[in-house]
Amino acid sequence: MKPIPEPTRKRLIRLAQLLSQQKFKPLDETQNELPKTITSLRIQKLTGWSNATIRKDISYMNVKCGASNGYKIEELHRAITTKLGLQIDGDKKRCCIVGLGKIGQALLEYAGFENSNFELVAGFDSNVNRTEILTAPFPLYTTSYMKSVIKEQNIEYAILSAPEKEATALAIKLSEAGIKGIVNYTNALISVPPGIPVKNVSIISALQNLL
Amino acid sequence: MKPIPEPTRKRLIRLAQLLSQQKFKPLDETQNELPKTITSLRIQKLTGWSNATIRKDISYMNVKCGASNGYKIEELHRAITTKLGLQIDGDKKRCCIVGLGKIGQALLEYAGFENSNFELVAGFDSNVNRTEILTAPFPLYTTSYMKSVIKEQNIEYAILSAPEKEATALAIKLSEAGIKGIVNYTNALISVPPGIPVKNVSIISALQNLL
Repeated sequence: MKPIPEPTRKRLIRLAQLLSQQKFKPLDETQNELPKTITSLRIQKLTGWSNATIRKDISYMNVKCGASNGYKIEELHRAITTKLGLQIDGDKKRCCIVGLGKIGQALLEYAGFENSNFELVAGFDSNVNRTEILTAPFPLYTTSYMKSVIKEQNIEYAILSAPEKEATALAIKLSEAGIKGIVNYTNALISVPPGIPVKNVSIISALQNLL
Repeated sequence: MKPIPEPTRKRLIRLAQLLSQQKFKPLDETQNELPKTITSLRIQKLTGWSNATIRKDISYMNVKCGASNGYKIEELHRAITTKLGLQIDGDKKRCCIVGLGKIGQALLEYAGFENSNFELVAGFDSNVNRTEILTAPFPLYTTSYMKSVIKEQNIEYAILSAPEKEATALAIKLSEAGIKGIVNYTNALISVPPGIPVKNVSIISALQNLL
């Protein structure tokens, strides 16, 4: 099988999200039945990606498209989630939150995890007051326990929402603990050893990229 | 002047962040003085971008680099922020938060805005209970006032942190109100009229892109 290029992968992840939304939503309000298929033109309208790009991306998934009927939503959704390892009914990837300030606290009970292939299993903060005061559906620890908990609990991914000045030190600690990837919610540009992917979702960077 | 390609722009924004961090931090702990210059090799080490990419990106900024001394941090930082419109001492871009659930609420007092070229000036939620209970350093309104407040207050950018099922309807409302860009904090893939840029910072997408 051809390897899937990074931009294609990124679009397919978005497309899987879109398809799971389309399954629950009629095309327009006069329709009562849910659509079973989706054309590349409809995807183009919803995403802004070109028709050619969409067809090329989907070609990596080995699904058939009826010339006039479009793709079967269920089938395409299943193909993408299976190929990219996004199934929500399989084993969930174990994640932790590092930094329990206001944003980290809000993420402790974030409902978005429910329909995903990820689950939160631990939270960390350098301040013992935070870990004692806050409640979560999973245990909270001070960062001194981070390395041992990550190893013992097989935690693979971390969401970093610590203060900016602590961010790089914590990211290095995470990499030493064997984490496979970091979502960086802080504004800090963190440096980690090569081989550990970091995705930056800083709100300020996102705004700056809109200018 | 040559137009700046999107990936270069994105890296330069991260570089400006890095430079503002470098200004406050000695290169190693034995040094007491703050570094005044930075070499492209040091930037390479901190970011993982290739030396050639870094030099090419910076070439858009028309700043000089002493062969052995590297770039002057202050000068390079100022050049980038000026060219890309990121100055924090100029007029700040006015932003609003749409959706005041747990995440939206946490963003109301997010300290990251202080050192940025953006400011929050309004918040919106469809539920009047939320807008009445919550406190913020700026007014909170129900979404029925969204269009008029955005126009009257010259709000240019919106951060969308509403529930997934309300996301597209609110994004369309925002575009009708004349918003210039949207940061999408939800997991929903939102459809807006062409010409309105959307940056997705969904935590679940970020995690999926790490797999």
